[in-house]
Amino acid sequence: MKPELDDLAGSAGEWLRGTGPESDVVISSRVRLARNLDGYPFLTQAAPKQRAEVEALARERIEGNKLGKGMNVLYLALKDLNPIERLFLVERHLISREHAAGDADRGVAVGKREALSIMVNEEDHLRIQVLRSGLQLQEAWDEISKIDDALDRSLTYAFSPQFGYLTACPTNVGTGMRISVMLHLPAVVMTKTLDKILHSLQRINFTVRGLYGEGTQATGDFYQISNQVSLGKSEEELVQEMQGVVPEIAKYEKTWREKLLKEKRTWLEDKVWRAVGTLKNARTISSDETLELLSLLRLGVNLGVVDGVDQRVLNELFVSTQPGHLQKHEHKILEAADRDAVRAAYIRKRLGA
Amino acid sequence: MKPELDDLAGSAGEWLRGTGPESDVVISSRVRLARNLDGYPFLTQAAPKQRAEVEALARERIEGNKLGKGMNVLYLALKDLNPIERLFLVERHLISREHAAGDADRGVAVGKREALSIMVNEEDHLRIQVLRSGLQLQEAWDEISKIDDALDRSLTYAFSPQFGYLTACPTNVGTGMRISVMLHLPAVVMTKTLDKILHSLQRINFTVRGLYGEGTQATGDFYQISNQVSLGKSEEELVQEMQGVVPEIAKYEKTWREKLLKEKRTWLEDKVWRAVGTLKNARTISSDETLELLSLLRLGVNLGVVDGVDQRVLNELFVSTQPGHLQKHEHKILEAADRDAVRAAYIRKRLGA
Repeated sequence: MKPELDDLAGSAGEWLRGTGPESDVVISSRVRLARNLDGYPFLTQAAPKQRAEVEALARERIEGNKLGKGMNVLYLALKDLNPIERLFLVERHLISREHAAGDADRGVAVGKREALSIMVNEEDHLRIQVLRSGLQLQEAWDEISKIDDALDRSLTYAFSPQFGYLTACPTNVGTGMRISVMLHLPAVVMTKTLDKILHSLQRINFTVRGLYGEGTQATGDFYQISNQVSLGKSEEELVQEMQGVVPEIAKYEKTWREKLLKEKRTWLEDKVWRAVGTLKNARTISSDETLELLSLLRLGVNLGVVDGVDQRVLNELFVSTQPGHLQKHEHKILEAADRDAVRAAYIRKRLGA
Repeated sequence: MKPELDDLAGSAGEWLRGTGPESDVVISSRVRLARNLDGYPFLTQAAPKQRAEVEALARERIEGNKLGKGMNVLYLALKDLNPIERLFLVERHLISREHAAGDADRGVAVGKREALSIMVNEEDHLRIQVLRSGLQLQEAWDEISKIDDALDRSLTYAFSPQFGYLTACPTNVGTGMRISVMLHLPAVVMTKTLDKILHSLQRINFTVRGLYGEGTQATGDFYQISNQVSLGKSEEELVQEMQGVVPEIAKYEKTWREKLLKEKRTWLEDKVWRAVGTLKNARTISSDETLELLSLLRLGVNLGVVDGVDQRVLNELFVSTQPGHLQKHEHKILEAADRDAVRAAYIRKRLGA
């Protein structure tokens, strides 16, 4: 096991710290930039040698403290990581599932508190991501913009005056930016009013995904909203657009929460407390059920229905109960049935059951 | 409220004391005799005046210490009892649902520790029942036989040398006896082998019913087995017959329990502990769900999977969480939704959650 990864384990990372504006509904804000190096073909066209050169160059610049003052990173070459360690990084939202599954020269640079990650040779040469807890899109944008500028000074980006940043997939051409917020919408789900929200979001070209991005199902009432188009709008416009939409959704969710609390208090308390009871007593539990129950517990803590649960423990459980984290914690590969038993034991211990 | 009933509340009564032979599977043994007074028509034919006379006469004999030494009883006239109090007696297996629903002169005599009850003017003039915890059919028969003899000395029973005791319903003619045992068969239910047992029992003319007798569904894995025919066999033969069958079923149940514990321990522990978690945390719970969860908890306690639960508290909860008991405890009529919330709070308190 890479000892560096152990330093990450045991905390929830920036994406689930549970702080920041609107943090009862908005888990985290994320800005991602897709960048490619001028003079090298996109990865789909690149020869192995070129691919290796891109990684070496990018790594050298990233590690060489070229990102700005105090921006120390941990660089991990994926070839040095076993499947559990890769999954661990996916679960911490530091790399994509696709990046984890790849074999040739690839890497990821992880910044302090996991607020920054730079995937090297994922779909594009560089995928820079900055995360902030709660609704902090402007802050995330300011931060990533500085990092992007710093890298731009030591690397030459593939850029067209007409189209903007050139990217492997046409949907990213332009700003190369994707903005996402992770929302926790249990009351909207409970009251079956989610479709209404999804419909409005699709109309304004936002996509909605599950906890682990593209192609994953929404679990535990977590929904990730992203902009779909990055061409024809400035970065600031995209940030403003998302910044305008999210508080509306958060308000909607909070209105439903209050309504449930007022009109169906016993029903709601029952759901939340039964979740607590199951989490504290189950002897085997799947990762999906865990997310669903933790989601209810989070709602209960936010609404003051449940006390005595440490918010940090709760946030940490969302990540640490995932398969990669569990196996890393146990230092071995576990079959699904064994994972479910280990997960249940781990949750009981963390919740002091 | 009748203050006499308060003395009964707070304990589980004989039928759920949880002691006696085979008590991990056999909850209780019951012998019931149907008797009618000579010189009075069956109740279906009786005029109101005759009915009143039967009750007065029976009550006088029962209360007049004619049952044998030390057999003091509490006599309750049903007209003095409100619906909650009647339901309370049903839930304690002291009167039938039909008896509780009737309005004319009826009563019930309840013996010490609720091991004896005599319904007056239910379907027959007298329905005498003796209960024993666990598998104690012979003991119950010896006891009821003495009581029956004692009553016979002061009352003249309707009896035909050819048919035996005459009863309102032909199925009871002969001995007038019904023997029942209440069994707890969670492992048989879990392993879906119940049908096999039911089939064998039906072949030898035994009927299987739920927790509250005729027409009630089996809940919480409780099954009541009774003899169907009381004509043409002596009381001793009927007792011997049942006494021969029950240990076989108990053995079958116990074999499955051990098998589950050996082959599916985590699964079983998970089911049991989740039940504990729900019981200790729910804010609203129906009486059916309560029985199901208590049934799992009972299994867990019997198998040593759960500790720290007082067996007496557990037994008492089976009865005290029933609607009549809850309303009696709260001293008021409660709507179903309110009952479910009160029930959940009561369970949490009793389990020290």
